[in-house]
Order: sequence, then structure tokens, then C-alpha cells
Amino acid sequence: MKSVKSTFPLNAWYAAAYDVEVSHALFARTICNQKIVMYRQSTGQVAALEDACWHRLLPLSMGRLEGDEVVCGYHGLVFNGSGQCTHMPSQETINPAACVRSFPVVEKHRFVWIWPGDPALADESLVPDLHWNQDAQWAGDGKVIRVACDYRLVIDNLMDLTHETFVHGSSIGNRAVAEAPFVATHGDRTATVTRWMENIEGPPFWAGQIKQARGYEGAVDRWQIIRFEAPCTVSIDVGVAATGTGAVPPGGNQGDARQSDRSQGVNGMVLNTITPETDGSCHYFWAFARNYLIGEQRLTHQLREGVAGIFREDEHVLEAQQKAIDEHPDHTFYNLNIDAGSMWARRLIDGLIAREQPPSPIIPIRLAA
Amino acid sequence: MKSVKSTFPLNAWYAAAYDVEVSHALFARTICNQKIVMYRQSTGQVAALEDACWHRLLPLSMGRLEGDEVVCGYHGLVFNGSGQCTHMPSQETINPAACVRSFPVVEKHRFVWIWPGDPALADESLVPDLHWNQDAQWAGDGKVIRVACDYRLVIDNLMDLTHETFVHGSSIGNRAVAEAPFVATHGDRTATVTRWMENIEGPPFWAGQIKQARGYEGAVDRWQIIRFEAPCTVSIDVGVAATGTGAVPPGGNQGDARQSDRSQGVNGMVLNTITPETDGSCHYFWAFARNYLIGEQRLTHQLREGVAGIFREDEHVLEAQQKAIDEHPDHTFYNLNIDAGSMWARRLIDGLIAREQPPSPIIPIRLAA
Amino acid sequence: MKSVKSTFPLNAWYAAAYDVEVSHALFARTICNQKIVMYRQSTGQVAALEDACWHRLLPLSMGRLEGDEVVCGYHGLVFNGSGQCTHMPSQETINPAACVRSFPVVEKHRFVWIWPGDPALADESLVPDLHWNQDAQWAGDGKVIRVACDYRLVIDNLMDLTHETFVHGSSIGNRAVAEAPFVATHGDRTATVTRWMENIEGPPFWAGQIKQARGYEGAVDRWQIIRFEAPCTVSIDVGVAATGTGAVPPGGNQGDARQSDRSQGVNGMVLNTITPETDGSCHYFWAFARNYLIGEQRLTHQLREGVAGIFREDEHVLEAQQKAIDEHPDHTFYNLNIDAGSMWARRLIDGLIAREQPPSPIIPIRLAA
Repeated sequence: MKSVKSTFPLNAWYAAAYDVEVSHALFARTICNQKIVMYRQSTGQVAALEDACWHRLLPLSMGRLEGDEVVCGYHGLVFNGSGQCTHMPSQETINPAACVRSFPVVEKHRFVWIWPGDPALADESLVPDLHWNQDAQWAGDGKVIRVACDYRLVIDNLMDLTHETFVHGSSIGNRAVAEAPFVATHGDRTATVTRWMENIEGPPFWAGQIKQARGYEGAVDRWQIIRFEAPCTVSIDVGVAATGTGAVPPGGNQGDARQSDRSQGVNGMVLNTITPETDGSCHYFWAFARNYLIGEQRLTHQLREGVAGIFREDEHVLEAQQKAIDEHPDHTFYNLNIDAGSMWARRLIDGLIAREQPPSPIIPIRLAA
Repeated sequence: MKSVKSTFPLNAWYAAAYDVEVSHALFARTICNQKIVMYRQSTGQVAALEDACWHRLLPLSMGRLEGDEVVCGYHGLVFNGSGQCTHMPSQETINPAACVRSFPVVEKHRFVWIWPGDPALADESLVPDLHWNQDAQWAGDGKVIRVACDYRLVIDNLMDLTHETFVHGSSIGNRAVAEAPFVATHGDRTATVTRWMENIEGPPFWAGQIKQARGYEGAVDRWQIIRFEAPCTVSIDVGVAATGTGAVPPGGNQGDARQSDRSQGVNGMVLNTITPETDGSCHYFWAFARNYLIGEQRLTHQLREGVAGIFREDEHVLEAQQKAIDEHPDHTFYNLNIDAGSMWARRLIDGLIAREQPPSPIIPIRLAA
Repeated sequence: MKSVKSTFPLNAWYAAAYDVEVSHALFARTICNQKIVMYRQSTGQVAALEDACWHRLLPLSMGRLEGDEVVCGYHGLVFNGSGQCTHMPSQETINPAACVRSFPVVEKHRFVWIWPGDPALADESLVPDLHWNQDAQWAGDGKVIRVACDYRLVIDNLMDLTHETFVHGSSIGNRAVAEAPFVATHGDRTATVTRWMENIEGPPFWAGQIKQARGYEGAVDRWQIIRFEAPCTVSIDVGVAATGTGAVPPGGNQGDARQSDRSQGVNGMVLNTITPETDGSCHYFWAFARNYLIGEQRLTHQLREGVAGIFREDEHVLEAQQKAIDEHPDHTFYNLNIDAGSMWARRLIDGLIAREQPPSPIIPIRLAA
């Protein structure tokens, strides 16, 4: 009795698209190994259907919309936004079983979220918190890229920013990141890695931002507070402030970031949610939001493209890593200190997956007489 | 005892090439999973050999012709048109077992037909009837395209022309096709779908043809008589005539097309024979012949390219359908009314395949004492 | 108990690179299914390591050198030329098990040789003899190409030069090669095919060489002495001399080439060593060295490009052959007379492979009482 191990839970909300990607037009994307066609109905509500006609499996995304219904591009079967067939050619009566699967959809914080698991469990309150993406106090922008790797490799990447030093040395990385101590904690659905770097030279990116926003040049206190929310969302609170102005909370890494005085600094939120496309590929949605110079469109544009460039460096590494993993199917991985955050994230993901597995069968043992 | 299910019978004639494709030169094509090299001998007769040298398997099509024999391009073994080795380098005697397989060939109705099964069963009278392709009363032209799908999907497509409305709306399809009733009948090796559409507006293509040929503008009676000949040939009698001039035979769909008066109309034959290349791809040979304005070369050229454009629309749909089928290996398909013709075609194909399977073994049952 | 059959022995020296390919930079190549990164250390000695970081498998070749050590491009682990990890980020102590595999390396006759098997057996005296590649009496040059075939198909190709007639008819092949008798002999690790063609018209290539070097036009005696050294090196002594001047040793094919007087001729050595990349692809290293006109750089350049062109003809044939073999996995191959040399080479290779297999288990037979 061999069970193929899942790489992701099905009972979760996954970002399927940026809000602006879905209009009154057929839009196809694969989410969690499932081909889905999405479109925005006249009510504004997004419909998400299995992208394969009930009759002969032609992708519905190759058909066309008629009002709020999809007409298959082969034989003209029509399906409504709930997936029910409402018309068949040359037939008076419609087989009541004729339908395609529809998926629960929620739109929140600028993303269209889809629940690929049991619809009865689709609780809107479980949508991950990415409110900075739609908050008047913050300005930002983002992109979605497809990466040819297991989504969990992106999580690993984000949970350990040591790699900035080696992968992103020309922008946000420097020796200070790899050398600074950090603290990893976790809850039921979250894991957090906190790293404060006091009185350091800012890396090129942040030195530029604080100068532009505050006119400040000199040593900084820098922070990275990485918060994972299972199964695939990571928000990272980052920034620098003039050193000694209170940005580091009492207790440092062990302290409470809410007691931090960031008024002499610049603060950004790197928002990431990574949706499995297949077991070996993912859609990586990200945005960078900031709470300084929020009216400057030019800076927003520049930051979006700058961050995109940094993520391309990761993409290169992640795809090479996936290829190497595929070539070493039996490799045992060892965790270093730096892997504490990703280790917790993985455990939380594994827990969600395990909860969806059928219980192990009880195998009766026949005793020899 | 697992038996891999064949998708096509081997004991049948398959179109391997248009006559003009095969000259005194080596021409390679895969037919029914078999790599074959063809060439026209000095007698005019086409030879068809397994495309792999007996010695080291180099494709013979990489060699060259010497008279009516093929010289392998690696070590110079020579084979005649029957596949027998007639020369080996550095050897006085030739291993009598040294030969490559040769296939029965017939040339008829402008196609080179190959029989990939048991040569003893290769009966020339079984070549499908496509005589319109070589008839002084008809003018036409065609092409061969490779489609990345099981040949049976092309059969399904041709046996139900409802799809014209949705796939070919700008040329030959309109609502009338999807709405008109039809009759499906079948014989031992054939299945026929007949559909008459009386007093309708002609679709763009046919409205243009009847105007050009007869100067007629106005309502038409339209017919589609689709005739499948197992395993893979479909000839379609199509056309329109001025409405009410007798094109519809007494009894309509149930009537006999031979009692139809088409003198006020235009008539075409869409000739199709689809040869499996592999289990998942095929060579689709088609021609369009007409019995009006038969001397006009410009029209012949224009129709050939026009039909080619229509078939490209099908190709797009068929390849997407094959991909979807591959992704849903366990999908159960349901037949609608419109699938009656393809359902009969599939049954006839399945019957031919079943006849070629080894008989099921009789499994002795051991009874408990 | 299924054992996957190896296609090559592991306990052998394989050419991994031309000497000039490896400098103080990371150079990646796959040898015998093993991804390897090479670099030249400050001592001049080449290091060869498994190209996958111990921690997360990123190819080390994506990192960078720091002195004689490799820094991984993801998290900055550092490995020395023996493969031992010497630094981990954010850790005081290093896991002593943290290392990547290193391979024995020898540099000889202009090649970097790697031993992918048991390092304890890596005996430098087993490096194949290709001394002509680094000898003041000889001038030459070569290349390395990747061929998408089992390396043994290249060996087969070189051990039977009959194919020159059919594959290389415009340069070095003519009927004389295919028709001339030859003698095949073998030892423990070598197999030799000797073919003398007396008083023949020189093929285009050699007719040009002897004219240029000796001013001679006319009939020639031609020789090809092919020497295989297991598992994958073939050196071919080739040339022509004015006919009747003593180039053919007493006894002809059966005679001893050392008694040949080649003073009225031109002599070349075709040096070949073919390293498996994977089971279905190889790195083909070759050079052509000559002992005439050795100071002429223009001729060296011209010969290198000329031979490269001839080998491209082989490449085309070899890749087609590999494809055909993959399509006929159960094909039984028959040997012709011309295959005597390759048959011996294959037996020697099979012997080396067999010696590396685990001994067959003794299967206890339970007798019925």
C-alpha cells in the first residue's frame, strides 16, 4: 500500500491571481495540480471552474463567455459560474450530472484566493494577513513569477536571509546578515525569525533609501522580522533606522518589535505568498510596500523593478536546487543553525498535510497457531 | 497478464503518402508506430521497408539509392525492394537471415496505401473508396498534416459536425448546424450521419460558392452526409442548393440521397483518411473535391488554402483535447445525442482491434477439495 | 533481484578535460553520470569535487573560488580542494561529516584524467598511452565534442574503418578500405585491427598530404593500425607511403609494423578517448598528430578543422544509431566480419564491468521432503 506523499495541503487558501489579472475574460492557471479557469462575473465576483469540459475535456478557457456563462469552444456546452451545465447542443434535456467542479473564491488584500480542498471547510477568516498590500499608510507594488521548483524551496529561501550575503551581495546582502544572531519562535500556524543588526553599515539598498527619505548618512540599526503563516505566506518586516534612536526594542532579538521606535528610520514589508502550480513548480506572488515617500510613483516603480531583479537571482538558485534534488532523490538533508526558521515552517506544513491523509489502516496480524 | 490495448487494427490499408510525395528518393515516415522508408522503383512500383538496417539499426533513409536498392549509410549493406540483403562489406557470403521487413503497397485514388499487418491478408479490394480524388467530373486538391492526437479524435470530430458552429463560426458553421436534426445509421464497416437543413441562410462559405457557380443568392437547402469506412476514412458529401428545388430527397434525413436533385446547387466531397503515426499522433490526409467550376485553377487553389485554414482550427482543438485526455487517464466519457455517429465509428474500430487480439486464455480454476 | 547493467567500469581513468580547459575558475562537467566541478589550485594541481553542496545541493559550480577553496553560492559554506567543509555561516563548530566527494586526478598527455571509482585503486600507471599528443617529434591539435550516444558506439565506429567508405566518401574513404582484408588480434587490455592496402590510389585526403609533404603523386601503400585500450581509448596509426618503398612490413597484415619503412610516406596518429557523460551520451576527446611538416601552423589549423568536419559526419550517424537502439530495446545484433575489432573491444569492456559487479548471491534451494 504505497501512498504518494503530498507536497501541499488542499484545505487552504492559495493566491490564484492578482485582482487585476482577472477581468470579464477567461483566464487559465494551474493551482495545486488543478487546471482552473477564472473570470469575473457581472456582479464583480470571480468564478473559478475546473478547466476541462465535462463532455470531451477541451479546456473551457479555449471557449468564450456569454454573459456570466462559459461556452465550450468545441461542441458548445454551456456552464454557469457554479459549474452547472445549462445548455447542450441538439438536446432538449440536460443530464443533471453534467457539471464541472467549481472552487470557493475570496478576494482580499489585492489577491484572488482559491480553496482547492473541501469547500465545506473554506473559512474566509483563514486568508493570510497581507493587509499592507491595501493600506493607505503604505505604498507598494508587486509581480507574480513562475518558478520551476517546489514552493517549499521558496519558503526555505525566505525563512533564512543568510543567503542575502551570498546571492544578493550587490544590493541587500552583506557580511553583517550572515554573522548576526537571530531568534526563531513558532506558534500553531506561524513561525517567526527575528534578527537585529545594531550599529552597522547599511547595505547599498537601505543606505540609499534612508538617505533619500530622511537625509541620513551613517551607521544604522537594521531589522528583519520574518513571519511565516502556514502553508505558504511569508511577510517580512525590514528596515533600518539611525543607530541608537530606539529602533531596537528593549531585549533586542528577544524583545517585542511593537516597542520599537522607528521614527528615525525607513520601513518596508516584503509580502510573499507562494502557490504550488504542480509538485515541482509554483507561482510566486510578491509585493514590496513601504511607509515612507508613499506619494512618489517613480520610487514605487523603481523599487518594484529593483526587487524583481533581486528575486531573479533567487529564481536562478531555486531552479538549480530543484534540479539537483530531483537528481538526488534519496539525499538526506542536514539542518544547520541557519535553518531553524525553515525547519519550523516545514513542520507546520507537514502537520497540515498529515491531517489530510487517510488514517493508517489497521493491519490484522495472523498469529501462527 | 496485462495486455496493452491497441488503438488501431494492423490488418488494414493506411494512407502512407500522397502519390507525388514518393519519387526515386528515400522518403521516411512513421505509420502505426513503425518507421518506414519508401521509394519509387524504376517500374513505378513503390517499395516500403522497415527503416532500420539489419546490422546496426541505422535508419536506411540516411543511406542512398543505387538503382532500385538501398545502400546503408553506415557500413554499406545493400537491400533490395523486398527487403533482402544483397551485399555485405568484406564478406563473400551473405547471411540469408539478413533482411528488413517489407510492407504490401497499393497505389489508389492518389494515395500510397500500406498494410502494416499480416501480408497474407492484404486484400486490395479493401482499400477505402476515395474515387472523387481521381475523377474527371471532379476537381480538387488536398494536403497532409501531422496532428499530435490519437487518430480517433479526428474521426470523432468529423462524425459530428455540430462543432462547426463553435469551432468554424466564421466560415462553414452557423446555428443551423447545431440545431438541425440528423440520422445516424451503420453497416458492417461503415457508419453514416445524414443531416438536411432546409430553407436556411447559407453559411459564409457556401453562400459564396453558390453565388459564384450559379449566380444564386437566397435561402438554401444544405446537406451533410458523413460516411465513415473503418478504420479511419471519412468522406463527407456536402453542399447547398436553391431551397425547394429538390435537393432534399423525399423523406428528408430518412430518405435516399440518390433521389436528390442537386442541379440547382453546388456539391463538394471532403475526403479524409487519418493514419496513426503513433498512439498519440496521426497523419491527416484530406482533399476537397467539387463538381462545379472544375476548370478554375484559381478556385482550386483558393479552396485548398481555405480548407487548410479551417482544419488548422480543428488541429488546435484536437491537440488540446489529446493533452487533456492524457492528463485525465481515468476519465469516463458520456455520449450526447450528437455523438451517435462517432459512437458507431468507435464500435467498428473496436471490433477490428478485438478481432486481432489473442484469444483470452482459459484460466483453470482449482476447486478446494 | 534485478541488477541494472552498467555501461562502463568505474575503476578506470577517464579524460575529463583538455588541460587548457581547467584554470583557476570553476568548471563543471558530468563524467560517468557524476556531476563534477573542477578547478586548478595555486599549486597547479587540479581539484575535482562532486558538484553539489553538502547542505542544500546547489551546484558548487554556481558559487565562487576564494583562494583554493569553493564558496557555495547559496548559504556560503566553504569547501577545500579535498572536499572538506571549512566554514559554515552562523556556526562556531563545523559538522565533521560535512564534505563533498573528491576524485583522484592525474594530468598526462594534455588531458586531465579523473578516476570515478574506488580511490584506493587509482593507479597512475593505468592512464592510457596518448604520448603523441605531447611529443616534440609530433605536431597536432584536437577538440572535445559531446555526442548523444553510448560511448561504446564511438568505439565500435573507430574499430571498424569500413565505414569510411560510406560515411566519409569525400575525404578519407574509398572502396579500397571496404574491400581490403584486415587482421584483428587482442591482449588483456588491448585489441588491435591492422589493415594494409597495397598499391592503391590514395583517397583525397592522403593524396593531398603526401603531395604536400613529399612532392609525391602516384600509387600508395596505405595503413590503418587501430589500437584499443580498455575501456575507452583508441589510437589509430594511419598513413600512406609511395608504393613499394617498404611501408608494408614483411608478412603484410600479419607482420610487425615496427619493421615498416615509412621514410617515403606521411604518418598520422588519430588519438581518441571517449568518456561516458551519462549512459546515453559521451564526451569525445580527439586529436590528430602528424610527424611531417610539423612546424606549419597553418596545416595544423587546417587539419584540426578538416578532421572536425569528418567527425561531424560520424556524430550524425552515431546519434541516429543511438536513437534507433533506444527504439528497439530488445534487438539482437549480429556481427559481421567487419565487426571483429569492436567485438573484442566490447568483450574487454564487459570484462572490466563484470569484475565490478557484486558476486552473485548463492540462492539456497529448499528440497521437497
